[in-house]
Amino acid sequence: MDRNAFRRELAQQLRVDSVRASDAGGSGHPTSSMSAAELMAVLLDGHLRLDFDHPENPANDHLVFSKGHASPLIYSCFKAAGAIDDEELLSFRKLGSRLEGHPTPILPWVDVATGSLGQGLPVAVGLALTARRLDRLPSRVWVLCGDSEMAEGSMWEGFEHAAFWELDNLVAIVDVNRLGQTGETMHGWDLDSYANRLVAFGWEAVVVDGHDVEAIEGAYGQAEQTSGKPTAVLARTLKGRGVAVVEDKPGKHGKPLDDPEEAIRELGGERDLKVEVAVPEAGTERHRFPTPGGDPARFELGDEVATRKAYGQALKVLGDTRGDVVALDGEVSNSTYSEIFRDAHPDRYVEVYISEQQLIAAAVAMQRRGWRPFASTFAAFLTRAYDFVRMAAVSRANLRLCGSHAGVSIGEDGPSQMGLEDLAALRAVHSSTVLYPSDANQAARLVELMAELDGISYLRTHRGAMPVIYGPDEAFEVGGSRVVREGDDVTLVGAGVTLHEALRAAERLTGEGVEARVIDLYSVKPVDGETLVRAAAETGAIVTAEDHWAEGGLGDAVLGALAESGERFRLRKLAVTTMPGSGTPAELLREAGIDAEAIATAARELVGARATA
Amino acid sequence: MDRNAFRRELAQQLRVDSVRASDAGGSGHPTSSMSAAELMAVLLDGHLRLDFDHPENPANDHLVFSKGHASPLIYSCFKAAGAIDDEELLSFRKLGSRLEGHPTPILPWVDVATGSLGQGLPVAVGLALTARRLDRLPSRVWVLCGDSEMAEGSMWEGFEHAAFWELDNLVAIVDVNRLGQTGETMHGWDLDSYANRLVAFGWEAVVVDGHDVEAIEGAYGQAEQTSGKPTAVLARTLKGRGVAVVEDKPGKHGKPLDDPEEAIRELGGERDLKVEVAVPEAGTERHRFPTPGGDPARFELGDEVATRKAYGQALKVLGDTRGDVVALDGEVSNSTYSEIFRDAHPDRYVEVYISEQQLIAAAVAMQRRGWRPFASTFAAFLTRAYDFVRMAAVSRANLRLCGSHAGVSIGEDGPSQMGLEDLAALRAVHSSTVLYPSDANQAARLVELMAELDGISYLRTHRGAMPVIYGPDEAFEVGGSRVVREGDDVTLVGAGVTLHEALRAAERLTGEGVEARVIDLYSVKPVDGETLVRAAAETGAIVTAEDHWAEGGLGDAVLGALAESGERFRLRKLAVTTMPGSGTPAELLREAGIDAEAIATAARELVGARATA
Repeated sequence: MDRNAFRRELAQQLRVDSVRASDAGGSGHPTSSMSAAELMAVLLDGHLRLDFDHPENPANDHLVFSKGHASPLIYSCFKAAGAIDDEELLSFRKLGSRLEGHPTPILPWVDVATGSLGQGLPVAVGLALTARRLDRLPSRVWVLCGDSEMAEGSMWEGFEHAAFWELDNLVAIVDVNRLGQTGETMHGWDLDSYANRLVAFGWEAVVVDGHDVEAIEGAYGQAEQTSGKPTAVLARTLKGRGVAVVEDKPGKHGKPLDDPEEAIRELGGERDLKVEVAVPEAGTERHRFPTPGGDPARFELGDEVATRKAYGQALKVLGDTRGDVVALDGEVSNSTYSEIFRDAHPDRYVEVYISEQQLIAAAVAMQRRGWRPFASTFAAFLTRAYDFVRMAAVSRANLRLCGSHAGVSIGEDGPSQMGLEDLAALRAVHSSTVLYPSDANQAARLVELMAELDGISYLRTHRGAMPVIYGPDEAFEVGGSRVVREGDDVTLVGAGVTLHEALRAAERLTGEGVEARVIDLYSVKPVDGETLVRAAAETGAIVTAEDHWAEGGLGDAVLGALAESGERFRLRKLAVTTMPGSGTPAELLREAGIDAEAIATAARELVGARATA
Repeated sequence: MDRNAFRRELAQQLRVDSVRASDAGGSGHPTSSMSAAELMAVLLDGHLRLDFDHPENPANDHLVFSKGHASPLIYSCFKAAGAIDDEELLSFRKLGSRLEGHPTPILPWVDVATGSLGQGLPVAVGLALTARRLDRLPSRVWVLCGDSEMAEGSMWEGFEHAAFWELDNLVAIVDVNRLGQTGETMHGWDLDSYANRLVAFGWEAVVVDGHDVEAIEGAYGQAEQTSGKPTAVLARTLKGRGVAVVEDKPGKHGKPLDDPEEAIRELGGERDLKVEVAVPEAGTERHRFPTPGGDPARFELGDEVATRKAYGQALKVLGDTRGDVVALDGEVSNSTYSEIFRDAHPDRYVEVYISEQQLIAAAVAMQRRGWRPFASTFAAFLTRAYDFVRMAAVSRANLRLCGSHAGVSIGEDGPSQMGLEDLAALRAVHSSTVLYPSDANQAARLVELMAELDGISYLRTHRGAMPVIYGPDEAFEVGGSRVVREGDDVTLVGAGVTLHEALRAAERLTGEGVEARVIDLYSVKPVDGETLVRAAAETGAIVTAEDHWAEGGLGDAVLGALAESGERFRLRKLAVTTMPGSGTPAELLREAGIDAEAIATAARELVGARATA
């Protein structure tokens, strides 16, 4: 069998196996798989360099299915490559199978979870950037995109950055099968519309018949020869190709074929071809960055320092001592203070401009390749990438995020710039740790701890300077808290700016004969339930105060910790409940009812209610 | 003074006033304002048609500042147009002023809040679409964009859709001043790079010197003459233009000038020019759609119906009776069932393809123009537009959202498709109402109620069919709940699929002599505190169960309602705590520990603990 004939046969096998897997699973997307069968057959046989036996080989190419719903196809590829057997293929979508409805990194050859469209391409851009700028290895990244997802803005963030970073080690294969979930895409088979856009964005673009293995061979060869820019292979294909009852037919998205046996016959029957996927050279090692060493960031008691500044300084020191730490920012590094890291370690800083989705996607890619990325922007603007953070959890990513300018306490810039939902959003991410430091030394220690954390960790920082209240040698732990003031009449719980307001409230209350315990709840998730339950038992009255909306933040974290204790207590949750405007930080804290006076008032009410009870 | 001279003078006045406002406010972005002064001067004097005295005139043009940080400029424009006086101009960024740090619709001439970059353009696209397709009026939408925000994917969702929808009533003015917050943008002054991209996306593109009023006049004239496609005016400008110490200088972003008096002298001093902004024709009225009338959607007790299907049916009926209801979907209308509305009211359905940011932006625009948009996609994919929803709240938008396919109960598709953070995310949005129906009739009634709600309302629907447990004539209210089973030993709280699991658990428990009260918490925000507090008092033990992560959802809503009551109770919060995979809905509910057996087990433990206490 000559090579073209083999590739055609392999493509038919990929189709048959996609039909079989979807049938065995009882659901899935066979027709979206069938359109790209030749594209994958040619890739596996002659272009992809991936040592399936050693997925950790840093010189491996990467294969990302941005159109993750074509999972039957990627699993069929893995079978053809000998990575999984037929029995596992047929476990598709069953409980406990590695072959989930959409690919996840439970499988060692899957870099990231996909299935939320528009994410695989930006992560692939990140993988190519990592190979080029951090690993400094010649591995290539191949990403299969759908045409429907070309409408996602995140794709264009990825296309823009790939060209800007001159990632000629990246090949985007766009499977233009014309049909989305409900009907025709915006551009149908107008392949030039895609080619024109990509060329304008700085890509090499090649238009091919996606079922012609010779044309595909030419396109991949051209991609491998292109230097200085990434290549897009725009392939005209038929959804459901090869089976007449579904081929190029509407209404056939996302369901197994009605008559799989007949379809398999039409496709020429089952095959058991194995493809020898090329293996990259052995012995290649990732680049390592030198580390000059350095001492932990220290701040003097009583100084006024913003936690965002402590983040930047601690991150810089982390970079001094760990060569795997990388920082990324969304063009606000002089606000988040990641610029301190950038200036010290320019080779390990990536400017992602105002593209928060690409920011997170690049960080997800870097951690997948063994780096420790810290990504920062305003807390408010992290919401732009919430779907990417959600999917990073599905990818089992170890990701460090910092959101600055949290809360109304930023002052004059107004609500568009205030992160007021970040605690809720990040708490509701699987695997997440949510940290919210109240002083600069604590912030620095938490940054150091984040470097060691698995999962997605998030540090919330404030714009304004706050007094340093902990010594530079004090240690903190994730899941801990600090009783910063003792008292048995009422408990005040805050973090960040509200911890300082709570301390001021306690000062006022003590003058009135009320002794308030003040807890610094710097670890919002996990939360120190033991300290909170003891406080509830010993004081019976708790005021929580947070520079955040009332839902899902610090107050709810406290409630969650106390819920199962059965302790009897009264709790007042102070939080932002009206839309703030502009004003000074002090004015806005007062307006929001989360300043010292509001906390003291709530405490008085609770203590008074108990006295009269 | 000839017209060009007047425009140049007006531009200088806009600069001077931007400097003055920023100085008075003590913060702000004068340099980002100064670059676009001529662009706005020419627009105000001869092109914009906006009746400042009658901002509700539907024939008005719209002016959106996508670069919302240039707020000093838009406020200076309002002053020049006579809409605000100098005293108000100088209240910029002060507590209580309408002139917030970034524009919000507190000002009647501001359609939407901007300041999170990349949002104004997609909303402007929505405004232009609304004018064309719904209002059917000739009003034009002018949107001033920054060059930094061109890196946001959401901009390209907007550009793509504007061309696809052939919005020749839209003009995007891109102020290419080269300098972002921290340094040069990706493309600097390479204006062709922008022009090429926009032309490829189907736009007319005109490159001009943004300080040449004659060139700008020509560009706007060309835009007004262009038919069948939108026009982008790409203007080469200097940031801080006109004041040598800041002009085209790095490090001058987002701060008042050090010496405003000298700057004002350099700009030729204060002026008090008034510009007569053209007024559109009077007497134009919005198009109204005919309504055939219809009866409420009804489902029979005992039938099995998915709440997502009830959403589609109820929405269609709403469209039958209200001409202002519009539906939008992100290319999953056959999953969310908004297709039922689409098929009945094709003229009031907008297919936004897989562009969730543009989906929400278009809905925000429509409600601004007096329509009642309902936007739907998978709950999981609404996370892609979280920043847009957040900003919609700042815009005081009345927005109706529906997220389908919530939770692990979707089954085989796996975690990428499961909305598991939507309750937390939407609860933490200001002005939000969060509804989570447990049967089809309830879902239909809640959809009807949503049409009347202010703020941002969210309906969570499930994929799978569930028994109809309420009669078609039963009424529900926002903020209500239903005790669907009486009992005094323990309270089980659920909604959606977990309400049905709780009912099954109660059946099991009653056989063991434990009488469980079961509460359907279909209104998660606002929540029915009275019923919950009574249940806590009367049963002393509560199990909450939700098909959602443990943070910020139904369980936390219950805790919040009980927190201030001072009641003594024990609560077990059952929620999804491990990353789900694929499997049948029943398998995944069991694995997550939120099925009937898990609920019954938790109830037994609470009852047993009380018995031994």
